[in-house]
Amino acid sequence: MKIAILPGDGIGPEIIEQAVKVLNVLGESFELETAPVGGAGYAAHGHPLPEGTLALAKAADAVLFGAVGDYQYDNLERALRPEQAILGLRKQLGLFGNLRPAILYPELAGASTLKPEVVSGLDILIVRELTGDIYFGQPRGVRECPDGPFKGQREGFDTMRYAEGEIRRIAHVAFQAAQKRGKRLTSVDKANVLETFQFWKDIVTDVHKEYPDVALDHMYVDNAAMQLVRAPKKFDVIVTGNMFGDILSDCAAMLTGSIGMLPSASLDANNKGLYEPSHGSAPDIAGKGIANPLATILSAAMMLRYTFNKNEQADRIETAVKSVLAQGLRTADIFEPGTTKVGTAEMGNAVVKAL
Amino acid sequence: MKIAILPGDGIGPEIIEQAVKVLNVLGESFELETAPVGGAGYAAHGHPLPEGTLALAKAADAVLFGAVGDYQYDNLERALRPEQAILGLRKQLGLFGNLRPAILYPELAGASTLKPEVVSGLDILIVRELTGDIYFGQPRGVRECPDGPFKGQREGFDTMRYAEGEIRRIAHVAFQAAQKRGKRLTSVDKANVLETFQFWKDIVTDVHKEYPDVALDHMYVDNAAMQLVRAPKKFDVIVTGNMFGDILSDCAAMLTGSIGMLPSASLDANNKGLYEPSHGSAPDIAGKGIANPLATILSAAMMLRYTFNKNEQADRIETAVKSVLAQGLRTADIFEPGTTKVGTAEMGNAVVKAL
Ligand SMILES: CC(C)[C@H](C(=O)O)[C@@H](O)C(=O)O
Ligand SMILES: CC(C)[C@H](C(=O)O)[C@@H](O)C(=O)O
Repeated sequence: MKIAILPGDGIGPEIIEQAVKVLNVLGESFELETAPVGGAGYAAHGHPLPEGTLALAKAADAVLFGAVGDYQYDNLERALRPEQAILGLRKQLGLFGNLRPAILYPELAGASTLKPEVVSGLDILIVRELTGDIYFGQPRGVRECPDGPFKGQREGFDTMRYAEGEIRRIAHVAFQAAQKRGKRLTSVDKANVLETFQFWKDIVTDVHKEYPDVALDHMYVDNAAMQLVRAPKKFDVIVTGNMFGDILSDCAAMLTGSIGMLPSASLDANNKGLYEPSHGSAPDIAGKGIANPLATILSAAMMLRYTFNKNEQADRIETAVKSVLAQGLRTADIFEPGTTKVGTAEMGNAVVKAL
Repeated sequence: MKIAILPGDGIGPEIIEQAVKVLNVLGESFELETAPVGGAGYAAHGHPLPEGTLALAKAADAVLFGAVGDYQYDNLERALRPEQAILGLRKQLGLFGNLRPAILYPELAGASTLKPEVVSGLDILIVRELTGDIYFGQPRGVRECPDGPFKGQREGFDTMRYAEGEIRRIAHVAFQAAQKRGKRLTSVDKANVLETFQFWKDIVTDVHKEYPDVALDHMYVDNAAMQLVRAPKKFDVIVTGNMFGDILSDCAAMLTGSIGMLPSASLDANNKGLYEPSHGSAPDIAGKGIANPLATILSAAMMLRYTFNKNEQADRIETAVKSVLAQGLRTADIFEPGTTKVGTAEMGNAVVKAL
């Protein structure tokens, strides 16, 4: 069980440290190796995804990723900016299946900007395709506009595309996830405008034949954004493309009001995965010891479940996290009067203790 | 002042009828002519945007549009489906500037799924580009995948693109709108991934030089979706492309909980415009006389303001709408205990009376 540990920037190292503590007390024999990524990769080796880091990630069974990005890298040319490391890892490792749960813990219902009755008990799983779509489609760039009223001017352009096999494999991931949950899947598209997503809808409909026990419905992306705000608990599993998934998964995460709690998994065809918190690198609070490590700890739990097939250990971690919440322990981001404010390391230690 | 009246489908005819009543009591001499569009266009002439309807819209100074779409047209081939009428009108009339206010009336604060303190007093203007982007970019279609691991399979594809002049003109609309409001503009992009939106960001930044009195900031679309849920009142004016604008404007509208109240304007370079409610055709309640006509009535107010430069008349209508709300009149969609439930025509009559 070889795990590449990529702490990254900002609060990345602090939160990863807590997740590593947790892994180390499970009584399993993990082989952990750390490498710089993002801004830290650029600082150390001139590239956000240094060769050695990529090689380590490829050789490992799973990657535990902190977060990337910090102010001093904001003005680098795009190819060198920290977030290119994420895009590079996803593509090079073939991590096409992104699982992003949006769960609202009962103790944290007050943190949401939505009314308690609208969100309490929220438990959605967003399955986002992660290596296709307009994120990677070619050609793209800036060129001379070839036709129409703006002919001859400069224009920026990108290509959206999904091949049949790409849609099929993410649809299988989503249907199988739905089978293990509420057996309802919503495929989000924009088939009324986009050829790519009419095609998407047709293929998902076809894959559905293999999963007659799952109820499938189709929803336009603009309507999905509305329904997430209006009645989020009506969703069970949502499957969508890379671009729409980027937007909707962040929207769904924010419904909980506590994105410091939300893990994510990005899987390849063989359940090798990259695991990372859904939140960012928060450079404004980096180094202060106040960041919430729970999303990263829960990401480690997803790793145990999906890559290493150790459901019992995953359950143990998740139960430990619930118990520290029940004890009233809160980092600053989820603090409310009447609870106990703790720092990053204290929170990590509390989870270790609960284990 | 020639106005093309396009009622469309579902609740379209009922709500348009109320807006026409309102226009008729203003003491202005409008020339109104009605034509079928959407499913009604298809039923009458075999096309969602019949030639005669398009010619009428072109000849008019403004278009007042109800809504399109109904169950019986759902299985038509895409080119004949009702929503193609909207896309066709936008493109053929050059209506590139879409203004979509998201306003929460104090009386309706309870309708929102968000906590009152998060949304009360909400007043955002979303400026969405409406004739470019991946909505219209060529090439698009289904083809044989030309390269990569899925080579030879079928793939759906579309082209995202924005020419410099297209970005400049919508940026001017947005900066000018911000000048008349809170003087803050947020440009939403995905410059960290898309060439089109790195280009967009560069051009918007350049146009900003002409508006030193407006504060400009840039935000990624995924973050914008989060911030709309987290702290929507921080926004003043948002400008973005066609696709992101489609998603974010619906999300913002739903924050208010009362999309039956939200008008929209789609303008060309000379302030000719198409005005329509932000909500859809709601075929499930069509013909029952219970639909909310206020978004359409407020769309007529926007028409007076933007196309006919009759700010005073626009103000009169908006004040009349506020006064019927203050009187406690509510259609079913915004009804709360303690208020008076009225039907579509009663609501229209109440606005007429308040005028
Ligand atoms: C950093 C960025 C490239 C990335 C994305 O857009 O996929 C991020 O927003 C995410 O969702 O992981
Ligand atoms: C009906 C559809 C084509 C349209 C769009 O996507 O623009 C609608 O969602 C809108 O926002 O007006």
